[in-house]
Amino acid sequence: MAYDGVETPHGKVDRMLGGAATYIGLAASCFTSVKIVAVVGDDFANEDVALLTAKGIDLEGLERVRGKTFFWAGKYSADMNDRETLRTDLNVFADFQPKLPAAYRTAPYLLLGNIQPALQRDVRAQMQSVRLAGGDTMNYWIRDYRAELVETLRDWDFLLINDSEARMLSGEYNLRRAAARILKMGPRTLVVKRGEYGAILFADGSHFMAPGYLLEDVFDPTGAGDSFAGGFIGYLAERGVKPGGAIDLQEWRRAVIYGSVMGSFCCEQFGVDRFRTLTREEVEKRYREFKACTDF
Amino acid sequence: MAYDGVETPHGKVDRMLGGAATYIGLAASCFTSVKIVAVVGDDFANEDVALLTAKGIDLEGLERVRGKTFFWAGKYSADMNDRETLRTDLNVFADFQPKLPAAYRTAPYLLLGNIQPALQRDVRAQMQSVRLAGGDTMNYWIRDYRAELVETLRDWDFLLINDSEARMLSGEYNLRRAAARILKMGPRTLVVKRGEYGAILFADGSHFMAPGYLLEDVFDPTGAGDSFAGGFIGYLAERGVKPGGAIDLQEWRRAVIYGSVMGSFCCEQFGVDRFRTLTREEVEKRYREFKACTDF
Repeated sequence: MAYDGVETPHGKVDRMLGGAATYIGLAASCFTSVKIVAVVGDDFANEDVALLTAKGIDLEGLERVRGKTFFWAGKYSADMNDRETLRTDLNVFADFQPKLPAAYRTAPYLLLGNIQPALQRDVRAQMQSVRLAGGDTMNYWIRDYRAELVETLRDWDFLLINDSEARMLSGEYNLRRAAARILKMGPRTLVVKRGEYGAILFADGSHFMAPGYLLEDVFDPTGAGDSFAGGFIGYLAERGVKPGGAIDLQEWRRAVIYGSVMGSFCCEQFGVDRFRTLTREEVEKRYREFKACTDF
Repeated sequence: MAYDGVETPHGKVDRMLGGAATYIGLAASCFTSVKIVAVVGDDFANEDVALLTAKGIDLEGLERVRGKTFFWAGKYSADMNDRETLRTDLNVFADFQPKLPAAYRTAPYLLLGNIQPALQRDVRAQMQSVRLAGGDTMNYWIRDYRAELVETLRDWDFLLINDSEARMLSGEYNLRRAAARILKMGPRTLVVKRGEYGAILFADGSHFMAPGYLLEDVFDPTGAGDSFAGGFIGYLAERGVKPGGAIDLQEWRRAVIYGSVMGSFCCEQFGVDRFRTLTREEVEKRYREFKACTDF
């Protein structure tokens, strides 16, 4: 969990609630009950705690320590396809060791946000009865912590990464070949996110292509990938999807669409603002729009 | 019609058959009977004429003049998303004035390849009973011949352009807004091509998103956009689609998918080579693959 400073062509916010756990949790809370494990500093605002608890998110695993919350600041390019990091202050996040409350250890679904692979593995190991586990990673871990990451991925049911990360992890430029290599590393299901161009699900020898939602205004893309992940795992949890035996591919495909739906809503306002008012009816309406604009 | 010299990471061909009319004609000939209007020089090879006639393409409108055929040479980047033009010799194309044989003037479907807008308008004007007319253009005409192009577009039923051209033509970065502006310029239907990411059809207040086919090997992307156009118009012609009254949106959507199918085949071998052996059964099989990989 973090505070972000963000500048886009639509405006500038010096400090607002952010962080992967925040976006994932808010998006997933539209579908299922959510428990967050994260760390914040003593500057973490009560109103931000209130937003999360109002969405039914369990914060027993939210550790508060002396110091400042992780801070990131960035500026987006005019077309918002690139961003420049202006500042990264790890603050209390630097010494984070995720500790799961006892009540969390029997949760059936686990989404591991982007963090050091050894810590992801440690959390995974604390949840021996998990039904479905997977997560995200990024270029930094792929490049500098490869062995640790490969070891971690072995125990995941699914991996969500963007296209450039899939290329880096596999050493293959072509996404079909890249996916084939990654699926040999452990995860049975791979979702390759392509930003505004949608996402591709690879599983069981086939693939599914989801388009990106065509927004009329992208205010702030921050958190869209994490919101995708939240919608994805949230839907799978709501449906009780299991990894063993024959994969119900249609459910996984729908999970990718719900991920895209949540990612698209995220971009409509700054930071997490869209999630403050978002209703399940709006989510279902957009899901139907995805149906309508892909049918032939 | 042209000769091309192409270098991709998969190889190099110094001189091979190319040109918009060639790719459009070959792709469309999978669906319907095709008549080509174009110009070539006295260096145009008999074997290239033979390939086109073997596909049932009518070459009465193929003008042969003294001099050399248009020549283009280019080199693709390692990821094949960019290309550098190494050489453009207009040759006999410089003085091209398209003249339609009498037998062409009553053809019901017209696809205008990328050429000076005034010439496109002149061809359109020669076909007073056409059922459906549209075409392609490019950045050069948008930038330097805007007034002429806008005048030309007024009489088109559809326009096919890529995303950067749609942005340039409309002055809007966002594709939804760009499409809304372009649809006010005349064409009732707009197809925005996005290269490997597929295409979007805008018509009658809604849009349809077609994914790009996920090829395992892209050998040579030259001609993919023109092959898309050929598949698109070929399918519409085969189905007898008309522009007046209520648009049969599902047919237009399927035309976009057939366009994508033909564009994907084009990339599988150098130049037009894939079209030498391509069968309608292979086309239908790939169409079904599009269905399968987008269904949810």
